[in-house]
Amino acid sequence: MMKVGVLGAGQLGRMLALAGHPLGLDLVFVDPAPGSPAGALASQSVHGYDDPRAVAALSTCDVVTYEFENVPEKAVRQLEQSVRVMPSVEALAVAQDRLREKTTFHELGIPSARFAAAQTVGEFDAAVKQIGFPCVAKTRRLGYDGKGQMVLRSGREAAAAWKALGSTALIVEQLVPFERELSIIAVRGRYGVTRFYPLVQNEHRNGILHISRAPAAVTPQLQATAEDYARRLLERFTYVGVLTLELFQVDGALLANEIAPRVHNSGHWTIEGAVTSQFENHLRAVVGLPLGETTALCPSAMINLIGEIPEASRLLELPDTHLHLYGKAARPGRKLGHVTVRAPDAQRLEASIAAVIAAL
Amino acid sequence: MMKVGVLGAGQLGRMLALAGHPLGLDLVFVDPAPGSPAGALASQSVHGYDDPRAVAALSTCDVVTYEFENVPEKAVRQLEQSVRVMPSVEALAVAQDRLREKTTFHELGIPSARFAAAQTVGEFDAAVKQIGFPCVAKTRRLGYDGKGQMVLRSGREAAAAWKALGSTALIVEQLVPFERELSIIAVRGRYGVTRFYPLVQNEHRNGILHISRAPAAVTPQLQATAEDYARRLLERFTYVGVLTLELFQVDGALLANEIAPRVHNSGHWTIEGAVTSQFENHLRAVVGLPLGETTALCPSAMINLIGEIPEASRLLELPDTHLHLYGKAARPGRKLGHVTVRAPDAQRLEASIAAVIAAL
Repeated sequence: MMKVGVLGAGQLGRMLALAGHPLGLDLVFVDPAPGSPAGALASQSVHGYDDPRAVAALSTCDVVTYEFENVPEKAVRQLEQSVRVMPSVEALAVAQDRLREKTTFHELGIPSARFAAAQTVGEFDAAVKQIGFPCVAKTRRLGYDGKGQMVLRSGREAAAAWKALGSTALIVEQLVPFERELSIIAVRGRYGVTRFYPLVQNEHRNGILHISRAPAAVTPQLQATAEDYARRLLERFTYVGVLTLELFQVDGALLANEIAPRVHNSGHWTIEGAVTSQFENHLRAVVGLPLGETTALCPSAMINLIGEIPEASRLLELPDTHLHLYGKAARPGRKLGHVTVRAPDAQRLEASIAAVIAAL
Repeated sequence: MMKVGVLGAGQLGRMLALAGHPLGLDLVFVDPAPGSPAGALASQSVHGYDDPRAVAALSTCDVVTYEFENVPEKAVRQLEQSVRVMPSVEALAVAQDRLREKTTFHELGIPSARFAAAQTVGEFDAAVKQIGFPCVAKTRRLGYDGKGQMVLRSGREAAAAWKALGSTALIVEQLVPFERELSIIAVRGRYGVTRFYPLVQNEHRNGILHISRAPAAVTPQLQATAEDYARRLLERFTYVGVLTLELFQVDGALLANEIAPRVHNSGHWTIEGAVTSQFENHLRAVVGLPLGETTALCPSAMINLIGEIPEASRLLELPDTHLHLYGKAARPGRKLGHVTVRAPDAQRLEASIAAVIAAL
């Protein structure tokens, strides 16, 4: 029985656990706090990334992975001394820092919005001038779900932003007038095999992912371009596991927005909608098993449950509708679960999405 | 968060747990022994059906169900004093006793093989004479996977059977020259809604289920007949949950063989092969949620892993192949897991089954 350590124990860890048990994997989760969504499904659960108990538990694992990218890089580098960590700490470090992320895109020839970095208020003013309005100021670190960023449309907004974002290292990006947001979930196995799920179309609300539709209606060329960009990243990091690349579609071209070195909210539809789920494929990759097919079974969509849990019976009476709750207490703005709907065609999928939204 | 108590904690309980977490259910398992397949996935796990701690844990549940039919009827009747038990103890009691089971089929007008009961060796001789050779002698209680039964083809075999089967209450049945073995998984919700999965074709080896193919190639009439028989049973018991009816096809007609008042090995294909799995539908039923669709997504098959666990990589490199291990130690004749394959058509399904068998 292979033992897999997971840093982080939120809903992504929970769904990794649900995929890992049938594969006969023994999962150990490390989380800063007790009572985590994954904890109830783990064979062992320890707290604190640098707690000696956690380090000891992880060092007996065959492989350690993460479901959360804000694990301290230093803690992961220390872990690497005693156990194999996948994906590599380099991918994690790049994903943690928006400047390194954008620089990596640039180095790999992956188009992205124009950007400039700032460490001081003076550099920030210069960066805003260089990029021009409208632009987005983002903290280099620790932003997620629209947090740690501000859209700037005027000098007055810019003047307030440096302080509002914490007087910390920032990146200023051109605000891209995108037609739509897409993402691609890619996976690379231990022996270099790569697989790509079909592009997903994402719709955000208040900075948080609201709906993902898969497969996105795109040309084969666009799919091939997205796969090409994702493959460059996988190869750059000799990556093992699932990597997510978020993209903007602008004038028919793709601009890279950000990467997540892990399974991703925009890939939850794969549990019911693809031959192999992103969770199973991530685990297959890190333990050295052959990757599963990434083909979509039919059109499907994922709708996030944010802030409150609706009455389950109103959702489950809808056709081919699947509920995934994360075992978290309700709190405004918190991701508490998601719903997946499948349909035989795009038209019926839209009807199902509308019915789910009405039931929320 | 609804709390569901489950009597038994084997692989069926494990798969109930995997289906229950996404629905936000809190599952408590009661099992005679520690280290059970379901234990690792339970929020709580207690031992011994009549242990006061187990009874106390279960009495705080919203509903108690079972994944194992040899739970003492008396213990369940006692539990019913303090908590709702579903399906009803009557269904359990009938399923535990082959004589009551066959008598119930007879009362409900469901055809089955001719049978006679015996409490003493004299009655046994008379029963064998009445039914004639070939026949099958089965213990009324505690038989499973071909255990507790003997095929009798001659007076000499019959003479040895009474003692060999433990000098206990028996039932003697006509040995039916069936064309094939089928089963139907049926589910009834709390409010009387019934749903039926397509008939499954089962192939046994050494008395243990080896392969299930679904949907079985049958006429709509045969499907309707099977549903009719299953519905009579569901209504007879005001049943809530999944009920399995095993059938023989003989000369184009169906004969009932036995029932299981629970999710069933011949329904494991529903995890990947149907819109809603039998595990999810059982839980939806007992907690009062609407039932999910029981339609098959495509042809699929389930192959049991008996006695030893094959190398996972040999299985997982096959197309649309899904591994389910139960976390049990290997032992000859023991069900350790199963493999599900899906295919776009029956021909490719057979190729996949052959590839799985070759990889075992």
